[in-house]
Amino acid sequence: MNYTLVDGKATAATIKAEIKQEVEEIVARGGKRPHLAAILVGHDGGSETYVKNKVLACEACGFESTLLRFEDDITEDELLACVTQLNENPDIDGFIVQLPLPRHINEQRVIEAIDYRKDVDGFHPINVGRMAIGLPCFISATPLGILTLLKRYNVPTRGKKCVILGRSNIVGKPMAQLMMQKQWGDSTVTVCHSRSETLVEECRKADILIAAIGQPGFVTADMVKEGAAVIDVGTTRVPDPTRKSGFRLSGDVRFDEVAPRCSFITPVPGGVGPMTICMLMLNTLSAAKKEFYK
Amino acid sequence: MNYTLVDGKATAATIKAEIKQEVEEIVARGGKRPHLAAILVGHDGGSETYVKNKVLACEACGFESTLLRFEDDITEDELLACVTQLNENPDIDGFIVQLPLPRHINEQRVIEAIDYRKDVDGFHPINVGRMAIGLPCFISATPLGILTLLKRYNVPTRGKKCVILGRSNIVGKPMAQLMMQKQWGDSTVTVCHSRSETLVEECRKADILIAAIGQPGFVTADMVKEGAAVIDVGTTRVPDPTRKSGFRLSGDVRFDEVAPRCSFITPVPGGVGPMTICMLMLNTLSAAKKEFYK
Repeated sequence: MNYTLVDGKATAATIKAEIKQEVEEIVARGGKRPHLAAILVGHDGGSETYVKNKVLACEACGFESTLLRFEDDITEDELLACVTQLNENPDIDGFIVQLPLPRHINEQRVIEAIDYRKDVDGFHPINVGRMAIGLPCFISATPLGILTLLKRYNVPTRGKKCVILGRSNIVGKPMAQLMMQKQWGDSTVTVCHSRSETLVEECRKADILIAAIGQPGFVTADMVKEGAAVIDVGTTRVPDPTRKSGFRLSGDVRFDEVAPRCSFITPVPGGVGPMTICMLMLNTLSAAKKEFYK
Repeated sequence: MNYTLVDGKATAATIKAEIKQEVEEIVARGGKRPHLAAILVGHDGGSETYVKNKVLACEACGFESTLLRFEDDITEDELLACVTQLNENPDIDGFIVQLPLPRHINEQRVIEAIDYRKDVDGFHPINVGRMAIGLPCFISATPLGILTLLKRYNVPTRGKKCVILGRSNIVGKPMAQLMMQKQWGDSTVTVCHSRSETLVEECRKADILIAAIGQPGFVTADMVKEGAAVIDVGTTRVPDPTRKSGFRLSGDVRFDEVAPRCSFITPVPGGVGPMTICMLMLNTLSAAKKEFYK
């Protein structure tokens, strides 16, 4: 089968250009530039990279950005005080607290301290709950990125069987909720996970297969239906001495053997990954425009 | 097959007796009786019956109850003021606003005005969101009643295929979220609906089939796998001149032809229905004990 390679990098670049254009129009009309703040605690390599890329994406979109850095030994109270300041600062439209946090800090408490109207990561229970029942809200970046790719590539979803591998709070669960909703996927949705007795059988029936289990190469050609659309959310760092960084990103799907069976497939890297930060930018623009909340 | 009839009426009676015993122990220790309030607007026949049964259930459980009645012409602001009073009244542990509300009132606005710590219906976005990500919270009565029946009847769910018919906000969606969670069903979950192209095929593979589409007799014997557990959430009023009330309740499942194929099946009436009010009582007890929130 001649598959379509879903190019997340190009799609993200297009959307960032669209955002920048809208921002310049807002500014030209005398409006305020969207302003995203990020809190980064400690020096985790992955987190450093993500936050740096978020700041760069802000520049690309014409946003202001503020990075607040703290050492690993910040107390929970100090971090909560910082969250409160950002909640109250009218110049900040949205902000994120880069996860993971050090173990002495209760992540959930920090997330719930964020004003849901500035929660551009969509992790606050109010946004999670509103998403579940189909109300306007911030949808977290990875699910929103996948929905956007499916839409921009005109992948048929209505009435189709969508199988999601993985039930994490940040990908599998919200993805399931969105794919079943009339206003989003309108699909028949199945969620499989480590306990599923019929995982392979389910995968083989999927018109859309979304793999988000973090096991490199888990999805093999015999698990994929001819003509399926395959979305690979896996981004496991696999040691690779030939790379300067010492690792490469590996998806959950064996691309080389699976791609020839697909109608659409996302590569890793360059598929879902680049969309994630782009969707954070879109949420920040929505926050600045008060699109979901007054 | 020799099926087990899942007796919701008897299970609910047992649980109410357990609740009453715990309440009397609390009172004997000098504690306060749980107190549930209900707001009823207008004179809808169904709503009158539900609220009356909730008040009776409070008596059976040893709770105090307060019924606040308003005419159809109450304004949204007046209703919101009543919600605020109940939020602030320390004697009220939990309360519900009986739905549906008159069309001039925004239901979602009223639901979101309820203090989530007193939201024993579990409809506030904070409870919906916390449930979705597996945090302690009020789970709405119908899904909680179904989970309780599955547990008390030792229906195997872990790793099994659970098919849910219907994607409503009060049954299908929360049921899917709970059945997929490790701490609840731990099942492979599929949600089918009006748009599903493969609905019948999915049903035939289900170890657990939960029908919640409100179409009398929709599930026929040929849609059910031998040995399946079938949960019928349908309660459509069908005209029946032989009844005093002029109607009978009809489930989504053709009981007579489906039951012989089942391992477990719930009747209508007497299955899921009686569990619903019972779970509201359990949530009220949890509220009084501040089990989920301080």
